Amino acid sequence: MNTNIRLTLPVVCFVWQIAMIILFGVFIRYDEESDTHWVETKAHDNITSDIENDFYFRYPSFQDVHVMIFVGFGFLMTFLKRYSFGAVGFNFLIASFGLQWALLMQGWFHSLDPQTGKIFIGVESLINADFCVAGCLIAYGAVLGKVSPVQLLVMTLFGVTLFAVEEYIILNLLHARDAGGSMVIHTFGGYYGLAISRVLYRPNLHQSKRMQGSVYHSDTFAMIGTLFLWMFWPSFNSAITDHGDGQHRAVINTYLCLASTVLTTVAISSLSQKTGKLDMVHIQNSTLAGGVALGTAAEFMISPYGALIVGFFCGIISTMGYIFISPFLEKTLKIQDTCGIHNLHAMPGVIGGIVGAITAAAASESVYGKQGLINTFDFTGDFKDRTVLTQGGYQAAGMCVSIVFGVVGGAIVGSILKLPIWGDPADENCFDDEVYWEVREPATHHLLFTI
Amino acid sequence: MNTNIRLTLPVVCFVWQIAMIILFGVFIRYDEESDTHWVETKAHDNITSDIENDFYFRYPSFQDVHVMIFVGFGFLMTFLKRYSFGAVGFNFLIASFGLQWALLMQGWFHSLDPQTGKIFIGVESLINADFCVAGCLIAYGAVLGKVSPVQLLVMTLFGVTLFAVEEYIILNLLHARDAGGSMVIHTFGGYYGLAISRVLYRPNLHQSKRMQGSVYHSDTFAMIGTLFLWMFWPSFNSAITDHGDGQHRAVINTYLCLASTVLTTVAISSLSQKTGKLDMVHIQNSTLAGGVALGTAAEFMISPYGALIVGFFCGIISTMGYIFISPFLEKTLKIQDTCGIHNLHAMPGVIGGIVGAITAAAASESVYGKQGLINTFDFTGDFKDRTVLTQGGYQAAGMCVSIVFGVVGGAIVGSILKLPIWGDPADENCFDDEVYWEVREPATHHLLFTI
Amino acid sequence: MNTNIRLTLPVVCFVWQIAMIILFGVFIRYDEESDTHWVETKAHDNITSDIENDFYFRYPSFQDVHVMIFVGFGFLMTFLKRYSFGAVGFNFLIASFGLQWALLMQGWFHSLDPQTGKIFIGVESLINADFCVAGCLIAYGAVLGKVSPVQLLVMTLFGVTLFAVEEYIILNLLHARDAGGSMVIHTFGGYYGLAISRVLYRPNLHQSKRMQGSVYHSDTFAMIGTLFLWMFWPSFNSAITDHGDGQHRAVINTYLCLASTVLTTVAISSLSQKTGKLDMVHIQNSTLAGGVALGTAAEFMISPYGALIVGFFCGIISTMGYIFISPFLEKTLKIQDTCGIHNLHAMPGVIGGIVGAITAAAASESVYGKQGLINTFDFTGDFKDRTVLTQGGYQAAGMCVSIVFGVVGGAIVGSILKLPIWGDPADENCFDDEVYWEVREPATHHLLFTI
Repeated sequence: MNTNIRLTLPVVCFVWQIAMIILFGVFIRYDEESDTHWVETKAHDNITSDIENDFYFRYPSFQDVHVMIFVGFGFLMTFLKRYSFGAVGFNFLIASFGLQWALLMQGWFHSLDPQTGKIFIGVESLINADFCVAGCLIAYGAVLGKVSPVQLLVMTLFGVTLFAVEEYIILNLLHARDAGGSMVIHTFGGYYGLAISRVLYRPNLHQSKRMQGSVYHSDTFAMIGTLFLWMFWPSFNSAITDHGDGQHRAVINTYLCLASTVLTTVAISSLSQKTGKLDMVHIQNSTLAGGVALGTAAEFMISPYGALIVGFFCGIISTMGYIFISPFLEKTLKIQDTCGIHNLHAMPGVIGGIVGAITAAAASESVYGKQGLINTFDFTGDFKDRTVLTQGGYQAAGMCVSIVFGVVGGAIVGSILKLPIWGDPADENCFDDEVYWEVREPATHHLLFTI
Repeated sequence: MNTNIRLTLPVVCFVWQIAMIILFGVFIRYDEESDTHWVETKAHDNITSDIENDFYFRYPSFQDVHVMIFVGFGFLMTFLKRYSFGAVGFNFLIASFGLQWALLMQGWFHSLDPQTGKIFIGVESLINADFCVAGCLIAYGAVLGKVSPVQLLVMTLFGVTLFAVEEYIILNLLHARDAGGSMVIHTFGGYYGLAISRVLYRPNLHQSKRMQGSVYHSDTFAMIGTLFLWMFWPSFNSAITDHGDGQHRAVINTYLCLASTVLTTVAISSLSQKTGKLDMVHIQNSTLAGGVALGTAAEFMISPYGALIVGFFCGIISTMGYIFISPFLEKTLKIQDTCGIHNLHAMPGVIGGIVGAITAAAASESVYGKQGLINTFDFTGDFKDRTVLTQGGYQAAGMCVSIVFGVVGGAIVGSILKLPIWGDPADENCFDDEVYWEVREPATHHLLFTI
Repeated sequence: MNTNIRLTLPVVCFVWQIAMIILFGVFIRYDEESDTHWVETKAHDNITSDIENDFYFRYPSFQDVHVMIFVGFGFLMTFLKRYSFGAVGFNFLIASFGLQWALLMQGWFHSLDPQTGKIFIGVESLINADFCVAGCLIAYGAVLGKVSPVQLLVMTLFGVTLFAVEEYIILNLLHARDAGGSMVIHTFGGYYGLAISRVLYRPNLHQSKRMQGSVYHSDTFAMIGTLFLWMFWPSFNSAITDHGDGQHRAVINTYLCLASTVLTTVAISSLSQKTGKLDMVHIQNSTLAGGVALGTAAEFMISPYGALIVGFFCGIISTMGYIFISPFLEKTLKIQDTCGIHNLHAMPGVIGGIVGAITAAAASESVYGKQGLINTFDFTGDFKDRTVLTQGGYQAAGMCVSIVFGVVGGAIVGSILKLPIWGDPADENCFDDEVYWEVREPATHHLLFTI
């Protein structure tokens, strides 16, 4: 197979970047908090201090999310013995590519100013762009090592587009809440990637079996990704929640949920081996499932023990997924899921959607307070008469929308990626950085001495 | 020896996590700043902006501390050639385990609401839980590679319990100040680990000599831990100090102190070798001693040059500890201290306690201002008539309490860990990840080519 | 050659650190926001909340900058197969050394209180000290592997001194704006390093050719540095900009610019190889050029698409620099630039200075607003009648000052470093950690199996 991408990769990058410059020129402007006219806005709105600028509420969380996107996702995928450049490098490329498109797509759908026809961006827009990109990086996990960077760019282009639409339907039309994106990010991203992987099924992938699996140092590198994702997940789930108690509570819930997940992941991992040894695959991945599953409910009054319960079950289910479901998916459903995103994102995402629907439906004025209930679920404007039960129903509906967009969108995009023009690797060259990277030491030598 | 932990590890994890869920259900609630009733609290207390929520004062520091706990401590211990999984993975496990217990123990001792019988938690509680866990992670450094994960969980369970009690005595009863935990965290954690290591003395540890020491890449991984600890230590020492000048000053002092420590560490390390070569063990560890030693005094008006002086001596003492004291401890006192926590935490912690006592006793109204003195030492309520000299005395008393709790507590816990039921490794299998982890490449091969 | 540094290194460290303690004792004090008298300052200035303390505006950015200095620069230089200790370790040493001197030098030039003769420091001083050190770490990149730690300390000592002077001329006398330091930090640091490298030219450097280049894991380690620099660059460029919209806008601009740079870097890197393979050197370095080039203009109203355009060209120019200009510099101009700082810092720095001059000259009241224009360019006091065109001219003049200081200063310092007393390595021992570090495995063995 021809893996020469010397024409396609530069062309896509240049054309795309020039298109971005033009579209940004037409549409994107600073919002009133990042514009030099802020001094007038302050005077007009009687804001007494610069510290009221949204920047100071969200920037620390933004930077944590940014680290998750680039170091977290990037290094989590370095576990393969000889695909670290592709893991970190292509993750870097498609995230940088996708976040620009996300600002436009999300802008058009969520914040196009009807009068000026402009999109006004601020720090919250950057967070949302990073979130949007996360969906595509999740999908990358399913096809890691089996696609070309050009395919990844195409996948990201369509992924961001689909994301913006399903997000609009779920958050705006259905008015579901999903601050940490259990549905919008993880469920969508998970099924999107799995569907693409299904369409791109490689029956002879065993030919690159020697390149699958990890070596000692690559597993250690992957733990950098795991830990930065795990530590900063409270920031992820709280980054765009309400100022004040909303951000505060989302952090507490996510922190507790993740701690609980670690213990049950270790327990199931140990149970799964004859002598109770632990498996790095589980520790690297399933420990994060709790963060995914609390994406919707983190800002609700799920209560600290509720967060622990969610984490408890997620650790169990995700680890069991690696042990039982992944082999089943590969053999029976022909879904080759390199990183096991079904266990880390798709399943926990669905759990998160369900937890969100239930906790929303069970919300009460006695727990939330009258104003607290309105604030938390944003029962204002067109939605001011919505009951919590109805809200629960819409949350569940949002769940379904994200699954449908993931599966159908992934199937369609997968078909596009099947065209024989994208320079993807042959079966025996999968999971090998030498296909798309200048590697200075020959792999043969490396294989000789470290496998 | 039987290192099968397939029964004990899952049982401990499950039983413990279920107990946590129940106890959290009974005791733990959101505090008024993370509860949806915050909107009413604001109205009641005349708070005009959400930015006054404690979340915005402490969350950036919390995240830095969180990184220190999981990446800092975890990667610092990856220096051994073949124990990176155990270093990062078990650190991850016991920290997640311990922080839940810490929230309860610290809650019962410090913030149990007498009326409702509940513990109300917020971001400061999370920081304190991370701090409490740090004590146990320090202790892990002394026994790294020589104990099973089940032993680590037991060690952490008792460690957190002891921590909460000594902390209560030092901070509440003695009313000593110790924002960065020179005494409460480092001295206690250090002596706790050393005492345990003494009780678990292995006369034939030389049988695993081939696994001791580092390789090139493992030393590089360890520097990730060192640097994240070093960079974020200003956040550690300022995370729970007073809003405003308290946090600000603690950062400046710690920043300066640590810079000074690096220079004297390098100097002594170079002096210790024939041709002046540097030793990575010193650079990885002793450079951090200044942060430990400023844990108590960071919030005081120790003045910038005072901080430099503390760092100056700590770098010298800690590096000399690695050169002279560690071999002495092992040979004469039979304390096998894998990571040299005596030099990094115990000794500098004691120095920190002494520095704190002296600077407290030397505090004056002319330097601090009348109100500044009251704020810094919290001379309010029952303690409003306390003089700085008395305060210095109580600081010194606190120092002793932390040593006693560490030594006695460690001796007792060490005896429990000596029971032959915990699945610890044989002498010849110490420092080897293969005992508790599925390692894909055989160690024999690895040993052949990289030792 | 004699590489014994057992005398010189400790002596320099000790003498220097003692000098620092004395000078800090004489000159450095806490500023009013980090002093216990803050409570009185608050009352006096009618500040209602501690959150108004500058600490809360700048600390998150400071910590990001701190990570860039120690982990970012440190790990970026670990790409060489056998110089990771030197990269991370010496970076650690000279940064710790330099930041103390920077606080003094910058204090004397910028903030010496004429009445008390003291320098009052706060969080912004720490950021500026880190910035100042960055200039020297950039210069280290040019001589990586070819100098002794003593030479690095000397280089840093003079580098910080020169930095403080040129910064004073550019920012205070010329009143140019340069918040992210395109001119002051990157251009100066780049040319300073290149000039030193030119003076220290080694005609027989090919004798250590076997140690040049990277191995697989060292390239992965270097990506840690790249990513932390890339992710936190928005903090770098916004850390000392105006509160409110200034910080907010600088973040948005830098975020966008860097994303754009990644795409064009990948495009050119792919174009440069026969089959379109990517080169890790480009991905590690050129992706960062956009951050450098927006250092001056990040706080201006360059507009989002303007930021993308800057990134677009920087990715192209920097990558082409690695392909075409670096070999030319080495062969023709005899500048051996280990890390390619000419392509990552010097050239993009100059571009940044030019972009800054143009955008300043093109600023208008219609875009900035009357007060916005005054705030952004600080047209107050002596400079209240300056026009934007004049400002553009002064920006360009600043650019020239930084180049002159870099080239002339570097030439002089290079001559000092040429003295045969500093313990630098022989040509055949360059790029080898064994010269200055205790390395536990013999390099010969390592070379046998992993090159």
